[in-house]
Amino acid sequence: MATRIRLDLAYDGRPFAGWQSQASGNTIQDRIQFALARICDQPVAIFGAGRTDAGVHALGQVAHFDSPSSVSHLDPIAWRRALNANLPPEIRVVRVRKTPDSFHARFSVKEKIYRYDLVSGDVLPPHAVGRAWHVPLLEASAGEIQAILDYFVGTHDFANFAANRGKPPTHTIRTIQSIRVTASGSRLSITFRGKGFLYKMVRMLTGAAVRVAIGKLPPTWIPHLLANPGIEKCHHVAPADGLYLVRILYKN
Amino acid sequence: MATRIRLDLAYDGRPFAGWQSQASGNTIQDRIQFALARICDQPVAIFGAGRTDAGVHALGQVAHFDSPSSVSHLDPIAWRRALNANLPPEIRVVRVRKTPDSFHARFSVKEKIYRYDLVSGDVLPPHAVGRAWHVPLLEASAGEIQAILDYFVGTHDFANFAANRGKPPTHTIRTIQSIRVTASGSRLSITFRGKGFLYKMVRMLTGAAVRVAIGKLPPTWIPHLLANPGIEKCHHVAPADGLYLVRILYKN
Repeated sequence: MATRIRLDLAYDGRPFAGWQSQASGNTIQDRIQFALARICDQPVAIFGAGRTDAGVHALGQVAHFDSPSSVSHLDPIAWRRALNANLPPEIRVVRVRKTPDSFHARFSVKEKIYRYDLVSGDVLPPHAVGRAWHVPLLEASAGEIQAILDYFVGTHDFANFAANRGKPPTHTIRTIQSIRVTASGSRLSITFRGKGFLYKMVRMLTGAAVRVAIGKLPPTWIPHLLANPGIEKCHHVAPADGLYLVRILYKN
Repeated sequence: MATRIRLDLAYDGRPFAGWQSQASGNTIQDRIQFALARICDQPVAIFGAGRTDAGVHALGQVAHFDSPSSVSHLDPIAWRRALNANLPPEIRVVRVRKTPDSFHARFSVKEKIYRYDLVSGDVLPPHAVGRAWHVPLLEASAGEIQAILDYFVGTHDFANFAANRGKPPTHTIRTIQSIRVTASGSRLSITFRGKGFLYKMVRMLTGAAVRVAIGKLPPTWIPHLLANPGIEKCHHVAPADGLYLVRILYKN
């Protein structure tokens, strides 16, 4: 009998073409499925909690798969070793556990936590290349940026803050539980918490807030877009570099 | 008249073949000299505080050069902008200042501070790839590793802890002012402070300490090697990945 297995994953998004499987084969999902196929000697499909775009990082992505009975001798530690031995070092299985069949990495999600990192000032430190968005013009304090982002907290129709994935998004009402801005030197981190986010939504909320914070748009522009879904798409999308999928929270 | 200019530099060591100029041209020194040549329209030589090996990082490397009179209109901010615009993002000029001709990036050094980062546990986080040494077997506490490293503090003949650079090292007596170990989760940082270090010395001291910490060699092996220069070379060299040139302190 197949056993359902949950994987907790971390990855550096830069070397890969995002989460979702592609013909190129250079996605996180492809790399993990390739490792599983080697271990199980047969194709095994995995399901991720959410798709991350090319360049987006994960500290706590979650996926599940049903392991064939031929590998039922593997315990969680052996699974982790086997998978990590067959994955590039930029993708790591942090934890493996057996889980009831009722668990689904995507459909059982209760909440997701994302973080977006920005660096202000003239110089982006070399070790932050590809890992933060460099905004030299950003002079606003954490408190000021927090005040801008507070517009987004709560339940809204985010149609203007969702990118098209092939076709325009539908069902665009979402609830953001909280947004918290913290600062450390020239680094600013924005933590978003919510049940779900639309395609590129976190990057659009960040892009919009930065646009207002550097004085290119008035603060009232944000409530205006939130109150009038469909009126005008926010086309200020923060780059993938600064985005981290931090954690997935599950029901029960 | 030429003006002497001091550069404070940071770099991610991974994409480059170390500090010192090579025929390949892919060193930090080459890249900066290439940027200077473009700005000054003539070759300009730079002098670094110390050579870092391939893969070694810098948060506070220092270099100087004498700027030709043709570019005397450039102020420090303009210099920094011009240099950074002509350098890869993994090398950044953090600060530029004019300095008296008596200043020499290498010969005026009073003290150097290096940090070595290690990660224990089964999994090296993806974002630490190339930036820390993964030692899964390391179970010793920060205090235990501190006790091992304390052997090295003070003035010793470090002949057994210096790699050959072409020929065997001479003048191998050095003084280490302090070594401090700090821990944060599975990450361990060792900070070395001293007037100067021999070739690969910090990596050899770290390699030796880890070897003792994981129980492969007795603690007495270290004082034995320190007391008997030339008896046996320490061939446990920690990889470049975890090494950071943190800061250079100058006389007056």
